[in-house]
Amino acid sequence: MADVIGRIADLVASGPTPDPDARAVMEMSILDWMACGIAGADEPVARATRAAATAGGCAPVFGARELYPVGYAAQINGATSHALDYDDTHFAYIGHPSVVILPVVMALMHDRDGDIVLPALLGAEVAVRVGLWLGRSHYQAGFHQTATAGAFGGFAAAGYILGLSAQQMRMGFGLVASRAGGLKAQFGTMAKPMNAGFAAQAAVEAALLIQNAVTANPDAAEIYGDLSAGAADISALDRIGQDWFMMDVSHKFYACCHGLHAALEAFSTCDMDGLTTITVRTNPRWATVCNQIAPDTGLGAKFSYGTVLAMAASGVDTADLNSFAEPFNLPPSSVALRDKVTIVFDDAVSETAATVGVTYADGRTVTASHDLRAPQSLSVRQDKVMAKAAALIGGARAAEIQCALAGHNAGPTLAALM
Amino acid sequence: MADVIGRIADLVASGPTPDPDARAVMEMSILDWMACGIAGADEPVARATRAAATAGGCAPVFGARELYPVGYAAQINGATSHALDYDDTHFAYIGHPSVVILPVVMALMHDRDGDIVLPALLGAEVAVRVGLWLGRSHYQAGFHQTATAGAFGGFAAAGYILGLSAQQMRMGFGLVASRAGGLKAQFGTMAKPMNAGFAAQAAVEAALLIQNAVTANPDAAEIYGDLSAGAADISALDRIGQDWFMMDVSHKFYACCHGLHAALEAFSTCDMDGLTTITVRTNPRWATVCNQIAPDTGLGAKFSYGTVLAMAASGVDTADLNSFAEPFNLPPSSVALRDKVTIVFDDAVSETAATVGVTYADGRTVTASHDLRAPQSLSVRQDKVMAKAAALIGGARAAEIQCALAGHNAGPTLAALM
Repeated sequence: MADVIGRIADLVASGPTPDPDARAVMEMSILDWMACGIAGADEPVARATRAAATAGGCAPVFGARELYPVGYAAQINGATSHALDYDDTHFAYIGHPSVVILPVVMALMHDRDGDIVLPALLGAEVAVRVGLWLGRSHYQAGFHQTATAGAFGGFAAAGYILGLSAQQMRMGFGLVASRAGGLKAQFGTMAKPMNAGFAAQAAVEAALLIQNAVTANPDAAEIYGDLSAGAADISALDRIGQDWFMMDVSHKFYACCHGLHAALEAFSTCDMDGLTTITVRTNPRWATVCNQIAPDTGLGAKFSYGTVLAMAASGVDTADLNSFAEPFNLPPSSVALRDKVTIVFDDAVSETAATVGVTYADGRTVTASHDLRAPQSLSVRQDKVMAKAAALIGGARAAEIQCALAGHNAGPTLAALM
Repeated sequence: MADVIGRIADLVASGPTPDPDARAVMEMSILDWMACGIAGADEPVARATRAAATAGGCAPVFGARELYPVGYAAQINGATSHALDYDDTHFAYIGHPSVVILPVVMALMHDRDGDIVLPALLGAEVAVRVGLWLGRSHYQAGFHQTATAGAFGGFAAAGYILGLSAQQMRMGFGLVASRAGGLKAQFGTMAKPMNAGFAAQAAVEAALLIQNAVTANPDAAEIYGDLSAGAADISALDRIGQDWFMMDVSHKFYACCHGLHAALEAFSTCDMDGLTTITVRTNPRWATVCNQIAPDTGLGAKFSYGTVLAMAASGVDTADLNSFAEPFNLPPSSVALRDKVTIVFDDAVSETAATVGVTYADGRTVTASHDLRAPQSLSVRQDKVMAKAAALIGGARAAEIQCALAGHNAGPTLAALM
């Protein structure tokens, strides 16, 4: 690699001394820029940006009493709620819908009564549909679908809350297209949760800009799809408004990458005593997502088959957030076990499934499989989510949230609980 | 076109009534999200985003007395200074450096003494270098280099001002990669100046996030280049730190797209009386940029060879901002002249040059050429920029800005003049 960015970084950090003529040209550009800015201050786009920047006011964030301007609030809440990588996942969409959509909904509904479930569901459904339309090709190319498709979904939620017209919605999706971004290359760094926050921020800000009369090319979103390896799969829109693909969302019951869950579920049925090798068969799509070999951080461990299976085999609770806390030190017993784990990528295994084969010192072999898509009733799912929420934040707060969602002032109630 | 986005926009605006079970699933996700957000509020990335959101404070913007949070200030000033499309252009870079870099510099230097020219120049130089590295292929694919490369340049300026280390710089360029965006498809809408504002905002926010300990993949910027049709031209870094490519920046002396200027300069030497046809030979790269045939807005007219030449031929001052004011109505005499303009795209004409051929009723033919790159002395350029600035904002303010740039408190002085 030519290390283009490294060379630039080194230069800037070194504080070079430029040619005086270069400084003179920059001074000209500063004068020219000031003149253009002062002369442009009454242009419609200038007035629109000033109005939009304050139109949303301030909103609450997790972990602080202070309110933040809505764009920042959306960014903070997106990053915060995705920090643990413990939030919901939609496998067909290949993304985490709630960490983008719900910061948007809360940024705009924290201080007003009204239904928050419908805008949230609309936004999540649009994220899923756009994600399917962008398709597997977009994700495999390197884009972080949670953020890219999520920004469009977040805009749908915000636009619905603000009552934008269909034409404003089209332009708004176009405006979002200029800002949709997020790379899978960030996985394992804080920039992964930041991607969710940036998408939520882009969505909120775009909706307020459109409401304040900013214009954009309504076709830009489709052009963005073409430019970002989008599959342009129009079957993604089949029965939109009738079938709700968001119903297939999965909730996490292990505190690590969702790609590891089927293997952990399968392995949990196996005897841990006296095992000599563990072989996991899983779909090849996970090879670049969660197969870090020897991560030395808790964040890295959340993306490592070998590490989480070794943790589970040595009795560490992989559902406990604290098991992945930093500084992360895998005990020697787990390190030894990690070397006994083999990962086999097999196209015949679906993305939501895994098969775990275990051999034992006494010659036994055991094989167990699990598919996360195996249907579960709504009430079983509700009970599991409630139990998880109670474990994370206490039963009283979990019950209060559940209760608020049945009423019409959920926004302010949830805001008070952040 | 399948009109995927239009169908989604119509659905969201219609406010559909979802299946009660879909609502129940969304309620589960809201509970789950609240639990993840509350549990994640002390994670390093959560703390970093909260700290970064306030670390920059507030900054001034063009056209208002109120201060705005720095991210918004950068967005507003980027959009405002690019609103008239009258700002500087770097042809090799294919972008407008100042409208991204200077909002970043002002967001962070508006209230402190110190040299603003060096960080501005460093940022502009990095924008130009990154733009050359992304290359023509990136621009031709559909990306708005002003914004995409500009975000990296803006980050360089901000990182230098904040004193980030070389390693922080690398990670910061990686963080920017998740947010670099902007499509040429927005040309002719307000989203074009918004792209500059979004890039400036991304740059300022990324620098504050990195300063507050957010991490990112330092290789992400190079991956972004691969994913966005980047040419990966490493000659873009030749003699970086020694030669300053920003010295080749052009300032605009006509209030329309820079692609039209060489033709207007050439045409300005021709006799306007009794002309029957005008033929412009120009580089094919401008065909998709500024060849709108019959625009009905002033913004559209700024991207139309036929319109601006017809305006010039009928005595309209194309250097006057008011000539492109909305509502835009081309006088009938200009409409008739527009139909006499023929554009010929010719690879033999460089991108900065144009040749104009005029025929007259009395049988005369005249041909004139102009190349914007024809060298001009520094003092000639300074005089022209000063004259333009004086025309836009008055000679006193222009002189005050020029004077401030020679001192060490330019930031506060410029802020007071916004």
